[in-house]
Amino acid sequence: MAGADGLKVGVFDSGFGGLTVLRELVELLPGVDSIYLGDTARLPYGSKSRETISRYAVSSARFLEEQGADLLVIACNTATAMALEDIQVSLPIPVIGVIEPGAAGVAAAGRAGHVLVLATAATVSSGAYTRALARMGLKAYEKACPLLVPLVEEGWVSHPVTDEVIRIYLEEALAAAPETDTLLLGCTHYPLIEVAIRRVLEGMGRPMEIVDSAKATALATAKLVTERFPNAIRMGEPRRSFFATDSVDKFRRLGGNFLGQPVDEVLLVDLGG
Amino acid sequence: MAGADGLKVGVFDSGFGGLTVLRELVELLPGVDSIYLGDTARLPYGSKSRETISRYAVSSARFLEEQGADLLVIACNTATAMALEDIQVSLPIPVIGVIEPGAAGVAAAGRAGHVLVLATAATVSSGAYTRALARMGLKAYEKACPLLVPLVEEGWVSHPVTDEVIRIYLEEALAAAPETDTLLLGCTHYPLIEVAIRRVLEGMGRPMEIVDSAKATALATAKLVTERFPNAIRMGEPRRSFFATDSVDKFRRLGGNFLGQPVDEVLLVDLGG
Repeated sequence: MAGADGLKVGVFDSGFGGLTVLRELVELLPGVDSIYLGDTARLPYGSKSRETISRYAVSSARFLEEQGADLLVIACNTATAMALEDIQVSLPIPVIGVIEPGAAGVAAAGRAGHVLVLATAATVSSGAYTRALARMGLKAYEKACPLLVPLVEEGWVSHPVTDEVIRIYLEEALAAAPETDTLLLGCTHYPLIEVAIRRVLEGMGRPMEIVDSAKATALATAKLVTERFPNAIRMGEPRRSFFATDSVDKFRRLGGNFLGQPVDEVLLVDLGG
Repeated sequence: MAGADGLKVGVFDSGFGGLTVLRELVELLPGVDSIYLGDTARLPYGSKSRETISRYAVSSARFLEEQGADLLVIACNTATAMALEDIQVSLPIPVIGVIEPGAAGVAAAGRAGHVLVLATAATVSSGAYTRALARMGLKAYEKACPLLVPLVEEGWVSHPVTDEVIRIYLEEALAAAPETDTLLLGCTHYPLIEVAIRRVLEGMGRPMEIVDSAKATALATAKLVTERFPNAIRMGEPRRSFFATDSVDKFRRLGGNFLGQPVDEVLLVDLGG
């Protein structure tokens, strides 16, 4: 925290999805300053290898720290699964990922025994959710859903094709893991189709608890802020900055759907590549 | 052409799609040596800005020239639309894109008056196909189809959801351009769903000529080779090398579907980023 400035929370994602975490965080801590980076020139991370994702995520995290972030939220499941430790050892500030909070959110929901995690291919291949849930005594089945991010980005959040794709993925997953009693949304794009997922589950006669890792992560971040940085929130209007590594116009246009309010100004940053 | 080596054709795409061009080229020139690069660490290009795409494409093209390519095929519609001239001025070897050959392929088909081009968002926003077709006296309507690449990469090439997405895109396009008589596949992923597109058009009562820019580009490349490099094909088994900037395992696994034969060995290359 430089001088009279308040606490500044850095939030990082490969694209826009992390704005769903920022949205929840702003609900909990309306006065907090924030700085967001979407690494849109190199997205999506979900289909790439651990080495590539780690290289991209560490350089993105360093940028936010250089811009004055006092605390960093990796608001991207893939980057958390593949690179959280690499980021933590690279930066001198606290770094929170989405996976531990997501798993803790399931445990806190209380009814869970068997958890179905919907996520990207890279997140699933890492097994990070299975390990985090096992530490809490919960069984997990992870299902890769590669089409859900493109469908959300196409804007088809309430659309028969999206419902049908969700139904196919859920049927495959529930056939493999029939004891499932709780669903964990393991990708920051998925809160935008939570209503559709709920509708499809009801149509299948399998309504169940849905836990959103974005919301759980915002809660964990707010808790860390009040514990580690008490009295750190400045008075007055919060300052929010947005950076992207590719088209700032597209970020402005799409970002508002994820943030739940207009994104006014986005600055272009070149991280190489 | 170094010493006793034969002609080596470089083929570049952001991912696997360009393998459909190589597949057609190998049919026409079975003995030709080739070197392929998929810039898989930075794909997809189709949703990114001109500046970013040009930077990625020029560095990829330079790599192929350094590896000994005598002639380069930009087997990616987005890179051609956004960066063909940047690549041509950066390299001392002939460079062919997919857009001029695709447009010429439509003109050669003979029946065309009004052409519907299906492509990525970036290709459509460039207007490159509309300009290339206008130079041949043809009218074009370009339709961005962002979900088709993810559907092909999910392996849903013959799937009811893919048919439905194609139907939605075609209905929107044909409502805006009702005089369409010819369809141009303006993305190297689309040959894998040509059968599905044909089936949907028939179901809509709108069967029409479908021109594939991958095939047209392979024809143009073969013509250039026989004109500019006569007697350049070595005798004996052709040498084919494959490079990728991300997971070589995934390239090996998925690449065969696009190439139509197994991809045995893929080498990892780091272009920065």
